[in-house]
This record gives sequence, C-alpha cells and structure tokens, in this order.
Amino acid sequence: MSAAQGEMVVCVLGTGLMGAPMARRLAGAGFVTHVWNRSPGKAQALRGDGCRPCASLAGAVSGAAVILSSLTDGRAMLDLVEKVVDTGAAGAGSLWIDTSSTLPDEAVAATRRLGDVGVAFLDAPVSGGVRGATEGSLAIMAGGADATFRRALPVLSVLGRAVRVGPLGSGQMAKLANQMIVAGTIGLVAEAMLFLSEGGADCAAVRDALQGGFADSTILRQHGRRMQARDFAPGGASANQLKDLDNALSVARDLSLDLPMIAQVRARYRRLVDDLGGAALDHAALYLELCDLNGKDIAAP
Amino acid sequence: MSAAQGEMVVCVLGTGLMGAPMARRLAGAGFVTHVWNRSPGKAQALRGDGCRPCASLAGAVSGAAVILSSLTDGRAMLDLVEKVVDTGAAGAGSLWIDTSSTLPDEAVAATRRLGDVGVAFLDAPVSGGVRGATEGSLAIMAGGADATFRRALPVLSVLGRAVRVGPLGSGQMAKLANQMIVAGTIGLVAEAMLFLSEGGADCAAVRDALQGGFADSTILRQHGRRMQARDFAPGGASANQLKDLDNALSVARDLSLDLPMIAQVRARYRRLVDDLGGAALDHAALYLELCDLNGKDIAAP
Repeated sequence: MSAAQGEMVVCVLGTGLMGAPMARRLAGAGFVTHVWNRSPGKAQALRGDGCRPCASLAGAVSGAAVILSSLTDGRAMLDLVEKVVDTGAAGAGSLWIDTSSTLPDEAVAATRRLGDVGVAFLDAPVSGGVRGATEGSLAIMAGGADATFRRALPVLSVLGRAVRVGPLGSGQMAKLANQMIVAGTIGLVAEAMLFLSEGGADCAAVRDALQGGFADSTILRQHGRRMQARDFAPGGASANQLKDLDNALSVARDLSLDLPMIAQVRARYRRLVDDLGGAALDHAALYLELCDLNGKDIAAP
Repeated sequence: MSAAQGEMVVCVLGTGLMGAPMARRLAGAGFVTHVWNRSPGKAQALRGDGCRPCASLAGAVSGAAVILSSLTDGRAMLDLVEKVVDTGAAGAGSLWIDTSSTLPDEAVAATRRLGDVGVAFLDAPVSGGVRGATEGSLAIMAGGADATFRRALPVLSVLGRAVRVGPLGSGQMAKLANQMIVAGTIGLVAEAMLFLSEGGADCAAVRDALQGGFADSTILRQHGRRMQARDFAPGGASANQLKDLDNALSVARDLSLDLPMIAQVRARYRRLVDDLGGAALDHAALYLELCDLNGKDIAAP
C-alpha cells in the first residue's frame, strides 16, 4: 500500500456482480474504499474484504476523491447522480467514474449535472466480465478530457487496462462498437457453422484449421464450440445483447447512420428473444434462430 | 534432406503467385521438384531454386509420387486434370493434391476422373497468401480420406499447418467458410469504424482498447486501420472476395440454406465492384460502399 493510496478515499456505488470485485481490488490496492448499494446487504458483505460499507449515500460519497459507479444502465446512473447531488455531500473537485454501460447522451447529461457542483465526470464502461473485474484485467474504454482521464488512472489501473478513446461519451461509443462487432461475429460464425455441418465437414476441425488466420477470433473458437455443442447457458444473455444493439442503433439514428448489417442482426436477436424464447440463453443462441429460419431441427447436437 | 525425400518426385502444376514459392519450399526440403506452368517462363524461372522445369505436362507428371496443383479456379483445375489423364503419364498409385480454391463439387469431379486412372485426390485449399507460402506457414484445409491425407502430410507439412477437415470437398467448404467470416467481419468492422468516427471517438484508440477482448480480430486491427487511412491497395481484391461469396452462396443454395448475413454482404460487394469501381481495391474497401450508402464523402481520411 502506498502512503498516497492509504489516505485517498474511493467510493464504489453499486456493488453487484461487477461492482463488488472492483471494490475488493481497490481495497486490496490500499484505497480507503467506501461501498454503498441500493439493497444494503451486498455492501455489508464486503466488510470482510477491507471495504467500509456505508448506510447512507451522503456518508459514502463524503470525503471521497473518486466516486466509481457500476449500475445496470444509464437511467439508474442518472438517478443516482441526481440523488448524490441532492445530498450535497459530493466534494467539489472530486471525480466521478461511471463504469456502467449507458447511452453516450446519458454520459453527457451526467457531466452537466455534476459540473453544477464542481464534480468532474468520465464515462468508462468496461469489457471482460466478472472474471476481468476479479483479476483486474478489464478492458476500460474511457471518454472525457485528457486531464480527467489522467486523474482517473491510479484508480483505473487497479481494475484493468484503460485507454482514453476520445471526448466525453466516447467510452460508451466504444462499448457499443464492441457489442456490435461481437453480436455480428456471432451471426457470421453461426452461418459458417451451419454451412459446414450441412455440407458434411467437421466443424471442430475447421475451427482448428482456421486458427491464427484472418477468420480466427475468440468468438469463432468459443461460441463456435457452443453452437456445435448446443451449449447456450449464459455467458452473455441474448436479451442483453438485444438491448445493446437497440442502443447502438438508437445512437446511429441520432447520427443519421444506416448500419445495414447491425440492423439485420438486431432484427434477428429480436426474433430470438420475442418469438423463440431465447431471452435468457447465451447470445451464441443466434445459431438457433438461424436453424429455425432454415427449418432445421434445433434440439439435438 | 532425408533420403526418402531425395528420391521422391513431386510435380507442381501452376507456378504463379502461390505455386512458385510452394515449389521453392519443396525443392528446398529435398524433394525432386518438377515444375510446369501453362506459360512456361514462370516455370523456367524456378530453375535457380533447385526445381526442374518441364516443357511438357507428360514429362512433368511422369514418375511423380505427388502432383500438387495451384490454379486460379476449379475450371482451370478440372481442365488440367483432363489433360493429365489424356497424357497417360500420371502413375497409378500416385496422389494429386489440389491447393486451388474451387467448388466442393469440382473436387468431387476431379476425384472421379482421376480415380479412373488410379490416382488419389485431396482437396487442400490454403489460406495465408504469398507470405504464408514463402514462409511455409499456410493454413491448409484438407478434405479426403484419412489414409490419403496421411500420405499427403510429408509434402503438406513443408508448406504449412495441414488439418483434415472432413471427407472430399470439405477443404473447399472450410475455405468458403473462411471467406464468409472474413468478408462479413470486414463489413462489421466498417460499420463500427463509421459509427465511431461519426460519433467523434478516436478509432485507433478504440482498436487499441478492444485488443484481447471478444471483439478483437486481425480484421479489426489491420483492415480497421486500412479503412481509417483510406489505404485500399490490395491485399485481397474485392472482385476475388465477391467471387468467393458467389461460390459460398451457390453451395448454400445447393444445400437449401438461407445465409442472410452473407447474402447481404455479397450484395454489397457486388455494388462495390459493379457500381462503385472497387473491383481491384482491397476488400477492406467495403468501407467505401458503406460511406456511399450513407452519403458520406469517401475521398479524404
């Protein structure tokens, strides 16, 4: 523990699946780590990990140099920003890092509201899941002023690899681009796997043969295997993938952009979720939608 | 040079961009390497590399335990099979390895025709380009009987990493699946890059931030950079990509398969090639088609 970190208070708001392991890492790195959660039990549970659970929001943010939020969406994040501003307890000169996935506009709205009370804001959504949060290996896509990003680095570097990807809202743009590519690649791998299996090729051997080439990806290896094994336990749920694609296309519409591949993939995830009962299945289940489209039996591997 | 290789004659038919470096590697590995090309100059040029240029097709295949073809397409391959059978010079018990990209049906037709004269056949298209052929690091996707594949391995292992991906024609299925994924991923990366740049994010920083995650791929890194830099010198020409997608969808039609993403990507490569003059541009130029679709200026980076 460095002396500086031992004196610095970081407040984690939202200690769910992602927030809890992030709070643990921050406490482990020597930050005085306040934790608060809407349902207080989840914050209390972190006491044994060196965190300081706070019963009130005002108590949690009071004295914090950095506030880090991890919430379900932008609406929850903006609600909490409003509540914190209302407490009057957030210190002028402090910094709010939002690791939630929101719309870029919601990051802009948060910045404005917090600016009224002298608090800087960085949108910093993450990729890498619970495992990345636990191991401190998250990919962190940060949007905001360069000086703000540099102030955030001592905290972010405990959580993973942070890259500033542009001005405010850019972190959310990057996260949406990430989701677009992931969802679309799942759709492509699904078409390739069905094509190969109907053509009598050995799908696992093909995935092996393609390793290291231009078609290779983690999606091909992991989700390709899932499709072949009909293993659709989440992982990332299809309903969440649909929500992300809805958000991406909403931003695209605001930018007057036509993204024809993503529009098609979104329509097909909607069919998977609304018509085929796939909401809770892993997003690799887009393979089932493709099988259904082709009148293929989707039950047996 | 092993004694066995020093006595074994391999005949390379077609010494173009890919065939020439493959012949050089085989000669370098100690095989007695006959080379033949339709326009003989390209074969003659390999004399200094330890190859034995042959003026006639009959002379080239005569005494060869393995015939390896590298031709522009399946039609050229089947033409040559017919000519070789007509010479009567191909030895019964020899093995023909076709590294060209053809339709699976064409591999089946070649097998039948060569079977009449006691020559075994393996479809073994490759991925990795001239560099892979030169360095012996090709990805080789082989279709055929397992015993035939094992006979081919001493030759194939000089050229790269060979995987048997199923029965006859499966190598071509795998190559088409490879092309489907590559073309589609280019389309997705194009949408992500345009989305990010119109949204004001730093595309290069986002590519950096996504490294190692689920959205990462060679396509994202290399072709994403090309799109941003408007660097569309081939690489892989868009006209070839279109031909591969046409072949993939022709096979899919024979299998009664609807592949909606690939169908869309094919239509858009067709627009790039036929309407936007992009035939000779690198396949990353699908970005230009997307920009055109969105009424964006496609000239300046």
